Amino acid sequence: MPVSTPPARRIIDADVHNAFADIRAELRPFLARRWQAYADTHGIVVPPAGYISPVGVQREDARTPSGAIAGSDPAFLITDHLDRYGIETAILTGSHVLGCSVHPDPDWGNAIASAYNQNLAARWLDHSPRFRGSIVVNHSDPAAAAREIHRCAPDKRFVQVLMASGSSRLFGQRFFHPLYEAAAEHNLPVAIHPGTEGAGTAGDPTPAGRPTRYFEWHNIVPINFQAHINSLVCEGVFEKFPNLKFVAIEGGLAWLPALMWRMDKNYKALRAETPWLKKLPSAYIRDHLCLTTQPIDEPEEPAQFAQILAMINAPGNILFSSDYPHWDFDNPLMALPPLPRDVKDRIFHANAAALYRLP
Amino acid sequence: MPVSTPPARRIIDADVHNAFADIRAELRPFLARRWQAYADTHGIVVPPAGYISPVGVQREDARTPSGAIAGSDPAFLITDHLDRYGIETAILTGSHVLGCSVHPDPDWGNAIASAYNQNLAARWLDHSPRFRGSIVVNHSDPAAAAREIHRCAPDKRFVQVLMASGSSRLFGQRFFHPLYEAAAEHNLPVAIHPGTEGAGTAGDPTPAGRPTRYFEWHNIVPINFQAHINSLVCEGVFEKFPNLKFVAIEGGLAWLPALMWRMDKNYKALRAETPWLKKLPSAYIRDHLCLTTQPIDEPEEPAQFAQILAMINAPGNILFSSDYPHWDFDNPLMALPPLPRDVKDRIFHANAAALYRLP
Repeated sequence: MPVSTPPARRIIDADVHNAFADIRAELRPFLARRWQAYADTHGIVVPPAGYISPVGVQREDARTPSGAIAGSDPAFLITDHLDRYGIETAILTGSHVLGCSVHPDPDWGNAIASAYNQNLAARWLDHSPRFRGSIVVNHSDPAAAAREIHRCAPDKRFVQVLMASGSSRLFGQRFFHPLYEAAAEHNLPVAIHPGTEGAGTAGDPTPAGRPTRYFEWHNIVPINFQAHINSLVCEGVFEKFPNLKFVAIEGGLAWLPALMWRMDKNYKALRAETPWLKKLPSAYIRDHLCLTTQPIDEPEEPAQFAQILAMINAPGNILFSSDYPHWDFDNPLMALPPLPRDVKDRIFHANAAALYRLP
Repeated sequence: MPVSTPPARRIIDADVHNAFADIRAELRPFLARRWQAYADTHGIVVPPAGYISPVGVQREDARTPSGAIAGSDPAFLITDHLDRYGIETAILTGSHVLGCSVHPDPDWGNAIASAYNQNLAARWLDHSPRFRGSIVVNHSDPAAAAREIHRCAPDKRFVQVLMASGSSRLFGQRFFHPLYEAAAEHNLPVAIHPGTEGAGTAGDPTPAGRPTRYFEWHNIVPINFQAHINSLVCEGVFEKFPNLKFVAIEGGLAWLPALMWRMDKNYKALRAETPWLKKLPSAYIRDHLCLTTQPIDEPEEPAQFAQILAMINAPGNILFSSDYPHWDFDNPLMALPPLPRDVKDRIFHANAAALYRLP
C-alpha cells in the first residue's frame, strides 16, 4: 500500500477543549437567579469520577500568557494550536461541564449546559470563525436537552450536540429518543465524550465495578463506547432517525472491528429479537457512526493501523482530533502511522468537512 | 501467507459443557445436610442474568438418546462430539453452576461449587480419560475457593480452576489474591467463562446499565473480559504470581490488540501509579493470558483473522474451543478462517497440550 509521510494538506481538529479560567465568573451571567445564588455558595462543580491523572489533565506547557489554565484564552488557543499546526477549524468540546449529565439534580444540569452554550457563543464563537461549537446537553433530562437543541440550532456556528458518555442508561434506549429527534430535526450529529465514567449518577466504569487507579480507568474507557454503540444499533435508533449521525470522540477505534463482527454474527442467529433492524449491524455503524482519532491506537507494527482501518471499512467516518490541550494530546504533524495520501486527506479534513458542513 | 484448509491433525477442545439432566439429583449426595434440605425445598438455582436466548442455549439437535438436555450423558457426548470430530480431549466447563459466585450467600455458593466438583470426578472424570475437569470455585469467597482448590488439585484430572466472569469486583484486586495463590501453588491456570454478566451480585453488564435484550447482551459480554484483563495486569497479579496463567474462555479475542495498544501507550505516561509493573502491559498479556476461540471472530475478509492473530502476536496463547453443545457451537472442521498449518496445529492442539499438560 503506498503511504505518504508528508503532513495532511488541510486540517480540521474534531476535539479541542476550550476551558474556563474561572467557570463561575464566566457562567454566572447566564444562570437564573436561583442558580446564581447556588453557584455563589457552592461553586459550579459537576460530579468527578475520582480518578486523578498523575500527570494532570491540562498540559502545563500550554498555559495562557497570563498563566491561566490551558485552553482558557481564545486568542492564545489560535496561536498556540491552530496556527502552529495549520489547523483551519477547531470543533470545540468544552471542559468541566459534561458532568452536568451525571449530576443528581437535572435542573442544575440543565442550567449548567445552557449557560455553557450561551457563554460559548459570546466568548468563543464570536471571537473567530475558526471555532465551531458543540451544543452541550444534559442527557439525564432528554426533553430539556431537546429544548436546548432547538434553542441553539438556529445559530449555525453550533455544528453538533455533545454529551457525556457516562450514563446510568445505554444510549439506544427510548428514554433518549426525544434528544435524538431534536438533533435529527436540525441535522446535527450527536457526539459523546469520555471522562464521566463512574462519576455521579453514571454506572460503574466496568461490568465488575470500579478500577483502582487513573491508569487502569483510562485504559478501559472504550468499553463504555462499545456498549453505547451496540445499544444504539440494537435498539433501532438509526432506523427511527435515518439522518442521525453519532460521533464517538476520544474513545479509540481499534476495538470496532471485533464489535462489528460479533454483532453481525449474532444478528444472523438472534435477529428475531430486533425485527426493526433491516440490515447488518455493521451497516448501521458504517452509515451512522463517526470516530475521532485521539488518543490514536498505536500498533507495534505501524502498518497494522491501516489494517484496522480496512477492517472498519468506513473510509468517510474517521475524524482527526488532537484533544488539545490535554495530557495525551496528539500532534497533527506526528500522529497517525503512515497512510495513503487520500486516506490522510479524508481523515484530517474531508470527513469532518462533510459531517460538520465546513468548507 | 500460505494457508491450509485441511482440518487440524489433532484436537483438544478447551470449552465443552457437561450438563445436568437433574442437577438436584446429581449434586444432592455431595451437599451437607443443611443444604440438602435447602435444595429439597428450593432446588439448586443460581442467579440468572435474565436474558433469554430466542434460540435457546443448549442445542436441541444434541439431546441425549433418552431425550435429556444436551451435554448430560458422558457416553453420548463422546460419540456425538469427540468421536464425530476426532477430538482427543475435552476440557469440561460445566453448566448451571458458575453463578454460585454471584449468589448473595457465599456459603451456598461454596456448597454448590464443591458438590459440582465431587460429582464431576465421579460421573465424568471416572467415565473416560478423554475428559479433563475444571475446579469450579465461588470467587465471592476467595479463602473458601482456595480451600476447594487445595482439596481438588491432588486429582490431576483437574487441569484448571474455573469461575464466573460476572463479579462485583475486578479480578486484579487484592480481594482475589488468596484464590490465585492457591492456583499458582498447584500450577493450575485460572479460567473465567461468561454468562453471569448482570446476574445476582455481579455489576451491571455495561458501564451504562443493563442491555435490553439477549442479542444486545451477548454482543457486549467481551467488555467484561477487557475490564478483568486490564485489572489483572494493572494490579500486578502476574508479578505477584509469576507462574499464574489466566484463561479467557468464550470472550472473543479480536478486541485484544486495541486493549494492548492502549495499555502500553498509557503505561508510558502513567506508570508512576503502578511501580510494581516491570514491563509493558502487553508483555504480561502475552506471558500469562490464553484465550479460547469460540465464538470465533469472523471478519468479512477471512484473511483479516490472521492479521488479528499477528497483532496479538501470542502464538502460544490461542486455544481452540467448540462450546459444545451451546447454540453458537463452532464446528472444529469448519471454524476458523484459513490459517498456516503450524498456526492451526498450535491453536487446535499444541497450545492446550502445553497449558494443561496433556499428551
